[in-house]
Amino acid sequence: MKPELDSFAQQTNKETKWVDLGGSYIGPTQNRILRLAKEYGIETYKVAEQESLVHYVNGKSHPFKGSFPPMWNPLVLLDFNNLWRTMDEMGKEIPREAPWRAPHAEEWDKMTMLQLFEKICWTSKVLHFAKLFVNVNVTSEPHEVSALWFLWYVKQCGGTMRIFSTTNGGQERKFVGGSSQISEFMADGLGDLVKLESPVYRIDQSGDMVEVQTLDKQTYTAKYVILATPPGLNMKMHFSPELPPLRNQLISRVPMGSVIKCMVYYKENFWRKKGYCGSMVIEEEGAPIGLTLDDTKPDGSVPAIMGFILARKCRKLSGLTKEERLKKICEIYSRVLGSEEALHPVHYEEKNWCEEEYSGGCYTAYFPPGILTQYGKVLREPVGRLYFAGTETATEWSGYMEGAVQAGERAAREVLCVMKKIDKSQIWQTEPQSVEVPAIPFVTTFWERNLPSVGGLLKCLGVSAFLSVATVSGMVIYKKS
Amino acid sequence: MKPELDSFAQQTNKETKWVDLGGSYIGPTQNRILRLAKEYGIETYKVAEQESLVHYVNGKSHPFKGSFPPMWNPLVLLDFNNLWRTMDEMGKEIPREAPWRAPHAEEWDKMTMLQLFEKICWTSKVLHFAKLFVNVNVTSEPHEVSALWFLWYVKQCGGTMRIFSTTNGGQERKFVGGSSQISEFMADGLGDLVKLESPVYRIDQSGDMVEVQTLDKQTYTAKYVILATPPGLNMKMHFSPELPPLRNQLISRVPMGSVIKCMVYYKENFWRKKGYCGSMVIEEEGAPIGLTLDDTKPDGSVPAIMGFILARKCRKLSGLTKEERLKKICEIYSRVLGSEEALHPVHYEEKNWCEEEYSGGCYTAYFPPGILTQYGKVLREPVGRLYFAGTETATEWSGYMEGAVQAGERAAREVLCVMKKIDKSQIWQTEPQSVEVPAIPFVTTFWERNLPSVGGLLKCLGVSAFLSVATVSGMVIYKKS
Repeated sequence: MKPELDSFAQQTNKETKWVDLGGSYIGPTQNRILRLAKEYGIETYKVAEQESLVHYVNGKSHPFKGSFPPMWNPLVLLDFNNLWRTMDEMGKEIPREAPWRAPHAEEWDKMTMLQLFEKICWTSKVLHFAKLFVNVNVTSEPHEVSALWFLWYVKQCGGTMRIFSTTNGGQERKFVGGSSQISEFMADGLGDLVKLESPVYRIDQSGDMVEVQTLDKQTYTAKYVILATPPGLNMKMHFSPELPPLRNQLISRVPMGSVIKCMVYYKENFWRKKGYCGSMVIEEEGAPIGLTLDDTKPDGSVPAIMGFILARKCRKLSGLTKEERLKKICEIYSRVLGSEEALHPVHYEEKNWCEEEYSGGCYTAYFPPGILTQYGKVLREPVGRLYFAGTETATEWSGYMEGAVQAGERAAREVLCVMKKIDKSQIWQTEPQSVEVPAIPFVTTFWERNLPSVGGLLKCLGVSAFLSVATVSGMVIYKKS
Repeated sequence: MKPELDSFAQQTNKETKWVDLGGSYIGPTQNRILRLAKEYGIETYKVAEQESLVHYVNGKSHPFKGSFPPMWNPLVLLDFNNLWRTMDEMGKEIPREAPWRAPHAEEWDKMTMLQLFEKICWTSKVLHFAKLFVNVNVTSEPHEVSALWFLWYVKQCGGTMRIFSTTNGGQERKFVGGSSQISEFMADGLGDLVKLESPVYRIDQSGDMVEVQTLDKQTYTAKYVILATPPGLNMKMHFSPELPPLRNQLISRVPMGSVIKCMVYYKENFWRKKGYCGSMVIEEEGAPIGLTLDDTKPDGSVPAIMGFILARKCRKLSGLTKEERLKKICEIYSRVLGSEEALHPVHYEEKNWCEEEYSGGCYTAYFPPGILTQYGKVLREPVGRLYFAGTETATEWSGYMEGAVQAGERAAREVLCVMKKIDKSQIWQTEPQSVEVPAIPFVTTFWERNLPSVGGLLKCLGVSAFLSVATVSGMVIYKKS
């Protein structure tokens, strides 16, 4: 039971004090990771969001407050409202523990998320934002992922608002001192039992005990083994006997997303003086970064901006040097924040997760079309004495540190159960809400619930038939009939 | 340079004499594998296609001759003709050696093949057949694969006719004595240099020589290494130094298809007496098999029918016992051939490729949407002293034994080139046509080239505008406007 140290990767040096190069953010409803951190006395702090966020689109910066940028054009507003409402409504019929059993599972799994967006969205503005929403949340492209899988993913994080928000959402907080501390405290407690830098290349359960061999030529024996890698990394291991057919194929069908996490350090927190909190939502094909958050330390020291190079952009920019990436990043920050100071960083840290052999990418695995309904059910089905943890096997905040904790504890209890130490009914456990980080329910307004979609509006106005015949044009209407 | 013995898997016993459980078929334009076989004195024979093929659809058998079943409804005929014409036309603009450079590469790679079929096909009959065409050719589902990739795949096999035909196509012939003999002869020539059952788990090129470690605890050193596994099986190896970011991610993004190859043996060749050659094209959701071919020995002994359980059906039926699968197979053969004799096999052989750890599936790797344009260019790009062969890296008949030979010889010449033994211009070589197995060009008729599509016909008739307004219904018209 090796903690996923990789996903908590951390750098410590004088320029940064500390910096999370991997998993970093936690928020309300992520109660298991919060409980664990509290046990170790690790405190959280809020990511800066007092001042304005900025939405950069069509070459212009629009400061705003709240989770999503506001839309001013009435048709775009209807379309935007309808997008989130539709995704959340569809999510409601997907069981978090078995998305392949959703009433429309087959239909939605045959579609890419791009196809679904093209059905839902009527305006190009909303379609573009929807694409960025996928890039930001799962570091892949809408045409790469199954609609069923992505709808499930958003649902099991608590919906579109919870997953995307800083305040009251998945990015509300960070750990003081870095998220690595959790793994480190846990490793300290286990002492010599934790073996680092010992990749497993062989698992043999053909005898009485399971034998696990590592690259440093050690052999470990155990009654049971829990694999806590992303499913795709099971491929790094040679199994005896072979895995069953569906698991053997599953593990080559769930790739990890593509992201470079980039931290730019500045002498001063110049953006706050301009009324910006440091959060930027950037829609521009030429910009390397899609989303930023303030990464200044809680005491106001070490001013910094964290930004993600996502999906297609990550693959495109992987070939540049670190310096070239930094230059491009500073240029877009300068344009978005309207500040020359952004061009003069004092330090830079980055982590390209695509080059990590033992993660394969970040933040998490995605399911291409057709895979979840065909292979999903073997995701955490034990194989002999092998049990499966890892955030990809979770049913709440899968893809996050929270999901990793849920999965690890559930897998440990599966083993306890098979050892007759606990009852089967105890394997899956709910978690009480964190006292320090309570969740505020997202309440939708009457208008959010009842405003028509663009399609609905047109129907109301009786112009639908007309539009089907005439050539549809104009700035706003994007959708082909 | 380990020959791909796995893909030539063969069983030899008294009931079968010999049987190819893996790669088996060869045909005109596959000149490299034909040349190699000839060198070893291995002869080919034609797969039986004298009598009628059968197309089974809507619960009825329709005997036919030729490559594709004929369509009698005039609208369906137009639609069918347009499907093949469109796919072949699209293929023409895709460079076989660099499909990511096709003029519409990005657009087509963002689509699944199902999406493209839904754009092309107007009738449900043709749409259903198109789906089976994907199942049969690449053992995956149309919604799982990139349209760009599938169009490329068909193109580099010589087009829709060449890939699907028995006579004058990819399934024209088999090797007398089985295809395994090629690997065996080759291995004999190399003697002790060939190491079987020695999976590689580590490749270290951080020193002067490349070190390769195998599960049986041997270490081999070499100046250069050629990896001839499917790209996804590179995941079984631990690399030092790590692979570059794009290759590291590519190898978890190209899964192998899903197929069980099933051979049913009978006392007598009863189908031929009924005027059937043994080829069946079966369209029925409940039928395990999608396509069959006669598998009787060239001298008429050992009457047998070979059938494929494909894609979704393979995953569904993997859970049954061998006996249960055989029963289902015999039942459908009995219905399609209208013969009680089909229910009484004398022997059965099958191979579920999904359970093979060291192939991961069969026949070949597929590219889900978005992957070919983002990662295709690193498919055969050397990494230090590692070079890449394997049929997936070929540019003619990739996915077939022919592609494996092209790729292996090309990779060997890449190494010879870097060793200064040959010139760079010699790496890629064309192959003269086989004298024994010449290709007959497929000539399209005037009507095939000029008949309108269903959409084109409707436009001609001036009913297009009408159809856009009215609710489109009826038996034939499937397509949503």
